[in-house]
Amino acid sequence: MIFSTLDDLRAACRDLPAGDEAAAAAALARQAVLTKPPGSLGRLEDLAVWLARWQGRAIPRLDQVSIAVFAGNHGIAARGVSAFPIEVTAQMVANYAAGGAAINRLAETAGATLTVVPLDLDRPTADFTKAPAMDEGEFLAAVSAGYAAVAPDLDLFAVGEMGIGNTTAAAALCAALLGGGAARWVGRGSGVDDHGLSRKRDAVEAGLARHGAKVADPLAIAAALGGRELAAMMGATLAARRHRIPMLLDGYIASAAVLPLARMASDALAHCRAAHCSGEPGHKALLPALGLVPLLDIGMRLGEGTGAAVAMLLARAALSCHAGMATFSEAGVAEKTC
Amino acid sequence: MIFSTLDDLRAACRDLPAGDEAAAAAALARQAVLTKPPGSLGRLEDLAVWLARWQGRAIPRLDQVSIAVFAGNHGIAARGVSAFPIEVTAQMVANYAAGGAAINRLAETAGATLTVVPLDLDRPTADFTKAPAMDEGEFLAAVSAGYAAVAPDLDLFAVGEMGIGNTTAAAALCAALLGGGAARWVGRGSGVDDHGLSRKRDAVEAGLARHGAKVADPLAIAAALGGRELAAMMGATLAARRHRIPMLLDGYIASAAVLPLARMASDALAHCRAAHCSGEPGHKALLPALGLVPLLDIGMRLGEGTGAAVAMLLARAALSCHAGMATFSEAGVAEKTC
Repeated sequence: MIFSTLDDLRAACRDLPAGDEAAAAAALARQAVLTKPPGSLGRLEDLAVWLARWQGRAIPRLDQVSIAVFAGNHGIAARGVSAFPIEVTAQMVANYAAGGAAINRLAETAGATLTVVPLDLDRPTADFTKAPAMDEGEFLAAVSAGYAAVAPDLDLFAVGEMGIGNTTAAAALCAALLGGGAARWVGRGSGVDDHGLSRKRDAVEAGLARHGAKVADPLAIAAALGGRELAAMMGATLAARRHRIPMLLDGYIASAAVLPLARMASDALAHCRAAHCSGEPGHKALLPALGLVPLLDIGMRLGEGTGAAVAMLLARAALSCHAGMATFSEAGVAEKTC
Repeated sequence: MIFSTLDDLRAACRDLPAGDEAAAAAALARQAVLTKPPGSLGRLEDLAVWLARWQGRAIPRLDQVSIAVFAGNHGIAARGVSAFPIEVTAQMVANYAAGGAAINRLAETAGATLTVVPLDLDRPTADFTKAPAMDEGEFLAAVSAGYAAVAPDLDLFAVGEMGIGNTTAAAALCAALLGGGAARWVGRGSGVDDHGLSRKRDAVEAGLARHGAKVADPLAIAAALGGRELAAMMGATLAARRHRIPMLLDGYIASAAVLPLARMASDALAHCRAAHCSGEPGHKALLPALGLVPLLDIGMRLGEGTGAAVAMLLARAALSCHAGMATFSEAGVAEKTC
């Protein structure tokens, strides 16, 4: 295991490299002389500079692009908090292997390789209304699995997840670390009816009542209320930062998973951009708490890293302009006069 | 010329085919059985159904994807309404031919062929504060050139534009047809300073004073206040509808160009989706008047069809899921239980 104690993990969470500001400045200078009005590519210009900063290259590249999907099962699912039975987690993992899921198609469209990491699917986490979801060893194993899934030489990375019940875990994490009560963070997830919604809120409130006292320790909260795939996404995001790999955050669950990192170091997500704002309503409240502005807001709420895969297309668009456009002097085009 | 009289053009604007609702219904039914929570791909699901409706295929395709960029020069540019000299229009056309502009790179990224149509660049339109920008013959020639630029068998189409001074023409068109005065519709375009902004507002107000009485006739307003590239974009959008080709509208100028169509037939843009909301502030007010909700809102304001090219990536993402995902029964995944 990469992290054998919580103290090891805590130390890693506080030892975070900065981006390459010289590469970022060179990229910004290049954007200013490309044949377009300054700033007119909007956030595509920011994406090019961001890739430059974290890759350490004035003209970045997108040759090694990867999405890791982590899957876990949740004891809380037994409380009827999802529209789908718990068996669907493993069935969807089989669907990924067969190439039939949305993330298979979107990763292919984005030119990204897809890695799927099932985490002890036959051993769901504990029901967090009764006990911590994971003990310390289980939590560290999941974080380590996520960390180990990230190759150090990637040009762009994203994580996704599959886990029946995991919007409930995400909501509980957000409610514990950001306040506002269950109602602020609980949505319909994969589509529960009003009764299911009520059961989700009750589960989150019960989880807060049992574990809320641990709120000063974000890692303890992540272990008590989260899940294996959330812990793995946190570990993978930490790995990306420590390898200085730019990363696109997916939706509500991926964003909730990295909230503990942001609580431990205020700039922990500097290497991340938010791919999209999910249709799951808690995400809209969560993103500002992470200091992130989403690139897309098109009502996606599927998970699996699908929003991140679509945002990878924007990164490719940004790079195609940044790397391939002519400058004013190369093209013989007159510059701005006023 | 395709349209030799305004009456010919008016007749074409009112003879608009409907989409294929059977194909759309079949696409919608397919979305409901793909391995994802119903609706969870958000607007990507709508894009798939929209492509199906206008292509008349339950599983649409994106093999023939094309962007046409029209370029024109504007007499109003002599009034100092742009941050760039008028020569830049022709210089950018040369840049397109050499492959160095943003739209070259983005069209390539989107898998779209790019056609550039310069329209009498050595003969700018008249200064609309003194006379109609175009006479009837000039206007019909430009509309016809746009109409003729659209191959009837395309799977997806978009238009873009280049024309120093054309945000002023777009603002004048919007102000004439939608009201609200110059201040509502005039922005900084390619980046004018405060003096330039003031000159733009004055030019628009002068144009409204001279031509506002024609407001009951949208085509007369398009000729008096628009420009050749705007007229061509209108013609091309009309052609796409008459060929039942789904189309992505680009930014402020492209949207202003098709406003006369929407004033003549309320569903004239049913085959269109708005690619993005431009950073040019008038666009945010214009889109609702066209009944359109933008797919992207990332501060782009470059023109050339660049926003539409980026949105084509979303259409490709939508189709990849629609055509390539497994159904619940194919994948052996349990469906929703509540």
